[in-house]
Amino acid sequence: MENDFKYLSSIKSPDDVKKLDENELNELAAEIRQKLIQTVSKNGGHLASNLGVVELTLAIHKVFDSPKDKIVWDVGHQAYTHKLITGRYDVFDTIRQKDGISGFCHPNESEHDVFYSGHSGTSVSSAFGIAQAKKINNDDSFTVAVIGDGSFTGGLVYEALNNAGRSKTNLIVILNDNEMSISPNVGSFAKHLAKIRSKKRYVSMKASLENILCKIPFVGTKIADGVYKIKTSVKNFLYESTIFEKLGFRYMGPVDGHDISLVTEALNTAKEIGGPVVLHVNTVKGKGYDFAEKDPSSFHGISNFDINTGEWVSGNTTFGNEFGKLMCTMAEKDKRISVITAAMSLGTGLSEFSEKHADRFFDVGIAEEHAVTFASGLSKGGMLPVFAVYSTFLQRCYDEIIHDGALQDQKMVLAIDRAGFVGDDGETHNGLYDVAFLQSIPKVTVYSPTTYDEMKVAFGNAFYKDTDVVAVRYPRGSEPELPEDYEPSFGTYDLYGHMWADTVIVTYGRLFSEAAKAANILLKKGKKVKILKLNRIKPIDMDAVDAVIDSKHIIFYEEGVRSGGIGEKFAALLLQKGYKGTYDITAIDDCFVKQAKIPDLLKEYKFDCDSIVEKLSGEN
Amino acid sequence: MENDFKYLSSIKSPDDVKKLDENELNELAAEIRQKLIQTVSKNGGHLASNLGVVELTLAIHKVFDSPKDKIVWDVGHQAYTHKLITGRYDVFDTIRQKDGISGFCHPNESEHDVFYSGHSGTSVSSAFGIAQAKKINNDDSFTVAVIGDGSFTGGLVYEALNNAGRSKTNLIVILNDNEMSISPNVGSFAKHLAKIRSKKRYVSMKASLENILCKIPFVGTKIADGVYKIKTSVKNFLYESTIFEKLGFRYMGPVDGHDISLVTEALNTAKEIGGPVVLHVNTVKGKGYDFAEKDPSSFHGISNFDINTGEWVSGNTTFGNEFGKLMCTMAEKDKRISVITAAMSLGTGLSEFSEKHADRFFDVGIAEEHAVTFASGLSKGGMLPVFAVYSTFLQRCYDEIIHDGALQDQKMVLAIDRAGFVGDDGETHNGLYDVAFLQSIPKVTVYSPTTYDEMKVAFGNAFYKDTDVVAVRYPRGSEPELPEDYEPSFGTYDLYGHMWADTVIVTYGRLFSEAAKAANILLKKGKKVKILKLNRIKPIDMDAVDAVIDSKHIIFYEEGVRSGGIGEKFAALLLQKGYKGTYDITAIDDCFVKQAKIPDLLKEYKFDCDSIVEKLSGEN
Repeated sequence: MENDFKYLSSIKSPDDVKKLDENELNELAAEIRQKLIQTVSKNGGHLASNLGVVELTLAIHKVFDSPKDKIVWDVGHQAYTHKLITGRYDVFDTIRQKDGISGFCHPNESEHDVFYSGHSGTSVSSAFGIAQAKKINNDDSFTVAVIGDGSFTGGLVYEALNNAGRSKTNLIVILNDNEMSISPNVGSFAKHLAKIRSKKRYVSMKASLENILCKIPFVGTKIADGVYKIKTSVKNFLYESTIFEKLGFRYMGPVDGHDISLVTEALNTAKEIGGPVVLHVNTVKGKGYDFAEKDPSSFHGISNFDINTGEWVSGNTTFGNEFGKLMCTMAEKDKRISVITAAMSLGTGLSEFSEKHADRFFDVGIAEEHAVTFASGLSKGGMLPVFAVYSTFLQRCYDEIIHDGALQDQKMVLAIDRAGFVGDDGETHNGLYDVAFLQSIPKVTVYSPTTYDEMKVAFGNAFYKDTDVVAVRYPRGSEPELPEDYEPSFGTYDLYGHMWADTVIVTYGRLFSEAAKAANILLKKGKKVKILKLNRIKPIDMDAVDAVIDSKHIIFYEEGVRSGGIGEKFAALLLQKGYKGTYDITAIDDCFVKQAKIPDLLKEYKFDCDSIVEKLSGEN
Repeated sequence: MENDFKYLSSIKSPDDVKKLDENELNELAAEIRQKLIQTVSKNGGHLASNLGVVELTLAIHKVFDSPKDKIVWDVGHQAYTHKLITGRYDVFDTIRQKDGISGFCHPNESEHDVFYSGHSGTSVSSAFGIAQAKKINNDDSFTVAVIGDGSFTGGLVYEALNNAGRSKTNLIVILNDNEMSISPNVGSFAKHLAKIRSKKRYVSMKASLENILCKIPFVGTKIADGVYKIKTSVKNFLYESTIFEKLGFRYMGPVDGHDISLVTEALNTAKEIGGPVVLHVNTVKGKGYDFAEKDPSSFHGISNFDINTGEWVSGNTTFGNEFGKLMCTMAEKDKRISVITAAMSLGTGLSEFSEKHADRFFDVGIAEEHAVTFASGLSKGGMLPVFAVYSTFLQRCYDEIIHDGALQDQKMVLAIDRAGFVGDDGETHNGLYDVAFLQSIPKVTVYSPTTYDEMKVAFGNAFYKDTDVVAVRYPRGSEPELPEDYEPSFGTYDLYGHMWADTVIVTYGRLFSEAAKAANILLKKGKKVKILKLNRIKPIDMDAVDAVIDSKHIIFYEEGVRSGGIGEKFAALLLQKGYKGTYDITAIDDCFVKQAKIPDLLKEYKFDCDSIVEKLSGEN
């Protein structure tokens, strides 16, 4: 039986938050923390970032009038408190579950969620778009972007600040500075923030000025503007101005993000100043839960854990960890191998590598575009660069893979983790596009191994056999179960099952496991099936096409988008070779795949063994 | 007969430049200007930017030792002088011509060209990669990125600066500030630069300090470091520090980029300072050619022109200009329509729109990612945003189209110019990928009109009929010639030619013109051909597939990549519908398409009327 929360359970909308006084808000904050820890310990999810913004979120909803004022949460995985106080307390236990509420903001859930987002650094651009539309329509309400310091390592934010500065829109950017993104924050911007953060003198000076000047009743914009000007000149005596001011924003802060009344006051000032403003708020990631405060990286995105010990079930081996180990071994032998991550050192299995080969490990920040172009430079300088990245984030590098990768006639390796379904993170995070977009790029080789051993062979090819850009893609989680009689060739393709069967399944990667299980069940039912498992999916070995060209029925299974995928390409190759049989593709159609456990998704999209058996039982 | 240049004709490598004294260098610069104007007036190309960096380029090659020191030219279209003095004077007349030298840097041409590039903002990332590789290998030579102020509106540069600042690599970034990118520069960064530029006092103070301190013979790094520190403290009295220093770079400048000895001195100081340095150089775009100085936008990328009058042959109508006119008309009637460009207002035909509807026109800088995410915000705010962009630059927005476009369930229109071959700009600029990558994104509709009228209908559908993200793509240049008996349906597809022919050509966009001409020639030869012209290429209307399912021979013509393109998709649709005939695709295989005139490319890739006739004459 869970706690019945005195305040939280009665909060139905931000209006209810507005009714509470400071003490009550602090009690509400404590309840919210309890609820967050309870829920994430069961469902998994993003914990540390959410614990850090409890007070900030309450202050925002106290000062602004959502949904008239738009609150845009960057990434959206720090919006749990926002969800709890905007009518989703009752369904909060379903977060990240099949048919439950999303772990990110989602406009379908609530009028208070503005965008559906899960990739970082988009909030300032999209909030500025809203603010600009409001300006055109003479609507003087506010648009607020809440964005972490980690996102500021990405160029999109800079493009947005450059465009929005001096725009005379009512845009307020709240920089939630927790000195940490997913990995400890990197780069010069972080150091710049650290420098600002340490200037205590300015903060107190600013605070007292505000106390004196801003609390005069009936403060109009003009007076507030005057206050701002005084502050600016005082500040310029105290320390150099910030990067935000260089980009045309007015800058306020830093403010203690766990002090609701301070943040409330600062936000009210920001409203009165008008024009684009950056409010810099210091928060502590994991605040209020010791284990998360001490190890915020591990409690960033986490599976379920024990509240009392802070321990989580450590899973089996994963492709990511095996990749990390492999890189350590290979880099020992080859001093050219260098590994790049875009703030995903832990997620991509590179913790050990980052320590063992610190001089050849590069965390470039949440800057995937730069990661690829930087890799291009490393390659030109004689190194063998590997960019380890989730499939969903590699989407950001499409142009760089073409322009700074494939076009340059030099080696670059892409290690693509989370290829295929990702599960609970849902629509924004599925790795269903990498195959299609890599297909379209000249001179790119793509491997989609099913097993750890095949992955190792693929990286060996990538480093020492293939040329230009080589991608090795592997799914979230562990090696799938395989039939005992499967003997991998480690070539470009494998055949399994009955060699003379009329019916052929063509597939690659994780789905081979389901297909092989299905083939064995079907065999017991008296139906012979052959499986063509593609190991290298670009270019496709024409021998693989020849191996099935005389079949009567070919069914392609693809854990990725149908449109532009290998299933369509395979059809073209078959047709051009004169194939006369039937053809069918099971893949992801023109839709986004919602959150659910991976096995549930495999079932839902008919990729699982049972669905394959059912489908093929009907084939002649 | 051309001038015989006293200095230029004898420059075979940068070593020859190093031998010249200041006066000789200035004479060389004058010769180079003459050569640039002569050549571009005949071949077309980038003029204004190249005229602006003549002295800067000479100074760079005087101070650095290429190819040991690496000189990375951003975009690469301002590297003409670099080409002229690195052994390509004799072949300079072939620039941008078929089989000639490239209008961009190209490692295949010279050891002095480091990367092949044509998209802006990549130089700092790739140069930093080289610098990092050098550091790992204890190589203390220099890596220099030369980058215009316009490129600084793009986020990639910021990601690179953030990563490279404080890296202790020998990276020198030369900011070539000509107060202009392709369109007049926009955003806060430009204003920040303007502010720095105006601080004359610092420049002279710095210059005199340098004169006194730097010219002491045998200046070692330590002393130079001391000089730097003195300069910094002096400077901090004079004005606030720059954004570059916030990002961990040492900043020098601004220096007059047309004074060879000043730039040479500054570069030598930069070398002695060590560590990542930004040198800010002021140049004048179009310098030395009055017409270009007065109208640098028009002389940015230009076709051939008359040297004496500065006039160029104004071409026929183009899809781009027709698009611009259409937007003006539609925006008159619908106040929600807003148009975004990423520094390509002129190129995308939006000059008139930018004046007529200034409040709904947004030039966001060279920031394509932001453009899409910003459009998402405008859409959320109730506007109807259109992002006008070249196909090749839309590649940068793949993730944003997915995450901030298609996923958001709201309208966004992409107006894709330069779809297909672009001609002289070559490999980096061809629009051969948009179809394939847009194919892979759920809920995106794509039109590929052949005529202006079809384009207008497509935009009508985009605004008022279709949902979510809608793309309309059209080629560089004018409406192609069409047979008189062609009657467009303005539906999702058209049929042309002999309705009962066994042989069917399927195609879309510009190629329909070639196919239709071929069909009429073939008819005269007694061969009946039917053409299925797809107007909406995503989703494909299944009626279009049904219309050809009973054919004996289907040949697909696609002016884009084969892999992941519509030809492959169409094959899959045919096979799934039980098609039993032959199938063939003519498209761009796994390669990059080199520079040549568009008609030559159509011929080379077998897309032209003659090639179609030849191919189909052989079909049964």
